[in-house]
Amino acid sequence: MLKLYDYQDSGNGYKVRLLLAQLGRRYERIELDIDRGETRTEEFLAINPNGRIPTLLLENGRPLAESNAILCYLAEGSAFLPSTAYARALVLQWLFFEQYSHEPYVAVARYILRHLPEDHPRRRQLPELRLRGQQALAVMEAHLKDRTFLVGERYSIADIALYAYSHLADDGGYELSAYPAIGAWLKRVAAQPEHRRLSDVD
Amino acid sequence: MLKLYDYQDSGNGYKVRLLLAQLGRRYERIELDIDRGETRTEEFLAINPNGRIPTLLLENGRPLAESNAILCYLAEGSAFLPSTAYARALVLQWLFFEQYSHEPYVAVARYILRHLPEDHPRRRQLPELRLRGQQALAVMEAHLKDRTFLVGERYSIADIALYAYSHLADDGGYELSAYPAIGAWLKRVAAQPEHRRLSDVD
Repeated sequence: MLKLYDYQDSGNGYKVRLLLAQLGRRYERIELDIDRGETRTEEFLAINPNGRIPTLLLENGRPLAESNAILCYLAEGSAFLPSTAYARALVLQWLFFEQYSHEPYVAVARYILRHLPEDHPRRRQLPELRLRGQQALAVMEAHLKDRTFLVGERYSIADIALYAYSHLADDGGYELSAYPAIGAWLKRVAAQPEHRRLSDVD
Repeated sequence: MLKLYDYQDSGNGYKVRLLLAQLGRRYERIELDIDRGETRTEEFLAINPNGRIPTLLLENGRPLAESNAILCYLAEGSAFLPSTAYARALVLQWLFFEQYSHEPYVAVARYILRHLPEDHPRRRQLPELRLRGQQALAVMEAHLKDRTFLVGERYSIADIALYAYSHLADDGGYELSAYPAIGAWLKRVAAQPEHRRLSDVD
């Protein structure tokens, strides 16, 4: 059976849980507490030398890291990843946008506010993080103004990847009400069959 | 013909130029000076609303952004992207590693040192950037100790993507001599047919 090294509060882990649920795939989930260094043990570093969740162990025991690479692997051949070359490229474009221009600001602001003490020096990064996160949300807002989903008017892993931290942006101090097209898209994503919430773990 | 919006000193742009050369594809290159705001003009934002190079315009005029998404699109069906599911997933794993754990530290340290004045406040970020960049280089060093290339013992777009800023790491204040396996791999990459240097633009 697939084995997922995961952390419940992680949006990156959530992406994979959501896709697995929508694919109807069963898996074993192993919770690692990132705040307690459980992704830095010798045992886990042997599986993922970069020491991050989510990491997937395939049925044959081979490991795969990086949430968006896992999404691509699992979605291959399904309705969640388009089959034409340009649409596939656009899905990848949004996945890389998510990891480079969105997650480091939208997710990290949330992490600092939820996981670090109020006097932690990283709190000083928040204004700069918010500015960059707002830029990412503005790019999504403009794109979604006249579209149903991010690519080709169909729900795909691009939507799953961007939904994960976008729907939690308020936790990072962003005001989602300022982004009505994102708000409407979040509702469409949450209305997909077999949707799961971040807190839904078995 | 393919049209590449590019900036010569960008490793992200260089990745695409290197693959295009190795694929033998002709293209028109349009230089945009990121330091002079040329990626923030109304005209360019209409092509890439995220305002970044490289951005590729396909023969039919459709745009594609994000360097690593462009690599995947161009390499599809060639020897530079494996055809089996797990090897493809590992290539993507390294491409996401590059954009999340490597480029923001190895490339950004180089950018600050080369493009910002000596009294710029971002210079204060350098110690933290170096620490994170060293962690990324250590992951690569351990992986390459007993491997020829990053995935499946064959040169692929994973090598192109990680080569781009790894071979320039000295510019960011990293000491590549501390990473002998990376050093040997850089030489193997540079010895590939039709290799190009960052400075090689037509």
